[in-house]
Amino acid sequence: MKNKELKNTIIKILRKHNLSLLHSKICAEAIINAELVGAYGHGLSRLKMYCERIKRKLINPKPKISIKKLSESISHIDANNSIGFVAADLAIKRAIKNAKKTGIGMVAVKNSNHYGLSGYYAEQAVKKNLIAMIYTNAPPAIAPHGARKSLFGTNPICFGTPSGSKVPFILDTSMSVINRGKIRFASKTNTKIPKGVALDKSGKPTINPNKALEGVQLPIAGYRGSGLAWMVDILSGVLTGSSHAGEVKDPFDDFSGPQNVGHLFIVFKNNLFVKNFNSRVRYNFIKIKKLPKVKGVKEIMYPGQNKYARNRVNSKKRIKISNQIRIEMKELLD
Amino acid sequence: MKNKELKNTIIKILRKHNLSLLHSKICAEAIINAELVGAYGHGLSRLKMYCERIKRKLINPKPKISIKKLSESISHIDANNSIGFVAADLAIKRAIKNAKKTGIGMVAVKNSNHYGLSGYYAEQAVKKNLIAMIYTNAPPAIAPHGARKSLFGTNPICFGTPSGSKVPFILDTSMSVINRGKIRFASKTNTKIPKGVALDKSGKPTINPNKALEGVQLPIAGYRGSGLAWMVDILSGVLTGSSHAGEVKDPFDDFSGPQNVGHLFIVFKNNLFVKNFNSRVRYNFIKIKKLPKVKGVKEIMYPGQNKYARNRVNSKKRIKISNQIRIEMKELLD
Repeated sequence: MKNKELKNTIIKILRKHNLSLLHSKICAEAIINAELVGAYGHGLSRLKMYCERIKRKLINPKPKISIKKLSESISHIDANNSIGFVAADLAIKRAIKNAKKTGIGMVAVKNSNHYGLSGYYAEQAVKKNLIAMIYTNAPPAIAPHGARKSLFGTNPICFGTPSGSKVPFILDTSMSVINRGKIRFASKTNTKIPKGVALDKSGKPTINPNKALEGVQLPIAGYRGSGLAWMVDILSGVLTGSSHAGEVKDPFDDFSGPQNVGHLFIVFKNNLFVKNFNSRVRYNFIKIKKLPKVKGVKEIMYPGQNKYARNRVNSKKRIKISNQIRIEMKELLD
Repeated sequence: MKNKELKNTIIKILRKHNLSLLHSKICAEAIINAELVGAYGHGLSRLKMYCERIKRKLINPKPKISIKKLSESISHIDANNSIGFVAADLAIKRAIKNAKKTGIGMVAVKNSNHYGLSGYYAEQAVKKNLIAMIYTNAPPAIAPHGARKSLFGTNPICFGTPSGSKVPFILDTSMSVINRGKIRFASKTNTKIPKGVALDKSGKPTINPNKALEGVQLPIAGYRGSGLAWMVDILSGVLTGSSHAGEVKDPFDDFSGPQNVGHLFIVFKNNLFVKNFNSRVRYNFIKIKKLPKVKGVKEIMYPGQNKYARNRVNSKKRIKISNQIRIEMKELLD
């Protein structure tokens, strides 16, 4: 299947699940982008789940999204339980509009769902020469420092900025050391997981993937990462009026109600305080890239460079679809 | 010496070095606060350095600080090479004022110097029921991921929010795993340093503190922490019009010019999107504190709780002054 055909198939599936053409297109583009940048956990692998939640009335395919204007800079969106892509698309566009008008835009979203990659939205702002800071919470994945039960989501911190070149600086970093998928893979392949990644069910550090799966994953950098994940939960959950404190539902296995994810978008002009931001940031990158390197490192990459390169390469090829996903897609069309 | 006397002595020293009474008081309060919360690296141990830089005309004791109003929300401060405490005090007060007026305030500072603890300024906003995000860069301390030379500073990420109780949530976290002081201590006491903290001069990981001192310190969490430190350099250095890319000067041993540190303050109302922010955040903390704990952990603490407790205990006692610092202070008064 060519990528354009694949996109049309996704649109067809979502249309069949009652999304409007516009909303289906927004979702399809985000899903294709996730595949192209190699973020498969945010791509086709979630399509069945989205449709399942729509069928069970846990995602609203025909949302009445309301945007409350609090000032020329600040807006509050009630996503009305829309699929996350649609709410986030609206939110970043509004944040961009506000930032262009006043220098800074801040948009909070409540009653939303999983929206894929934060970096995807940051890119939209960066393309307009704006800087973006984006936060979203997520279902429990990592234990707060000192706890032996998961509560924080992967709670990414996302920061995007124009780079003075066509390759944007997009930091989009989870607060979890490694994702659960990698621990499952280690379990299947009988390999050990790194130290400091997980605790067993009694709360002891473990490098045994099976014990880790019964236990909890840890935040990056101990109490520091735990604090950062906590910050993200406050910014995207407490502040916005969404679920928080571990109450965002897991989209794959919790069908007791809508996810109620929250997002926060802060966007501002890059030339607020200096006229030559782009040449300054370019200078910054060049200087860092010239540093002496650790053995084996060819280039010091800035965040987003790898994803951009993968996107370029993958865009020229057909997206690989696993048999499992092929079957799922076929069923979703039936 | 009683703490009040100590404060007066600091004021006397700074007055003697040509700071105004007001500016001397601002500095003395920040320095005393650092001692009380146990952040000794930001307290009395820096007093001699500040005075030395004033004497060498590398800090301006009589700065003409200019505040440019870009909008009701956004301001740009040129610190005119003031001591950092003074510029940051002005900046957080302006950010608070802007936030109270419009919901969100953003203040960038250029041509500044070391300002102590970011959390100290966040607290000021939190006391007014505002949320604060604060960034500052710093002289080279950690190597970008893949490099074997330091370039990023400790570049803290600071986030403060009202907590629904008198103990504010103040996350103020360095992007460095451990500070250089701890490596020096390990060297003196012939102990090893943890894995993943430092590289030797050839770029190989080391647990030998002496080799680490010849080499570089690493950011938290590998490429993730490197990306976060990079973000802080862009936000506080590139964006504000200050030095960046490793060009902020070390205040202790680089007398070739002013430090030119940059800071960024973003402050907003906690009730922008929900009316009951404080009870929501309280609920969040209570839920997290009730989680089952890792063995040996009595309480899951939120960021800022420890510092608050230390401040309370230490405020009732005399601040301990080492002989070294006592001698320095005496000399500074001579």
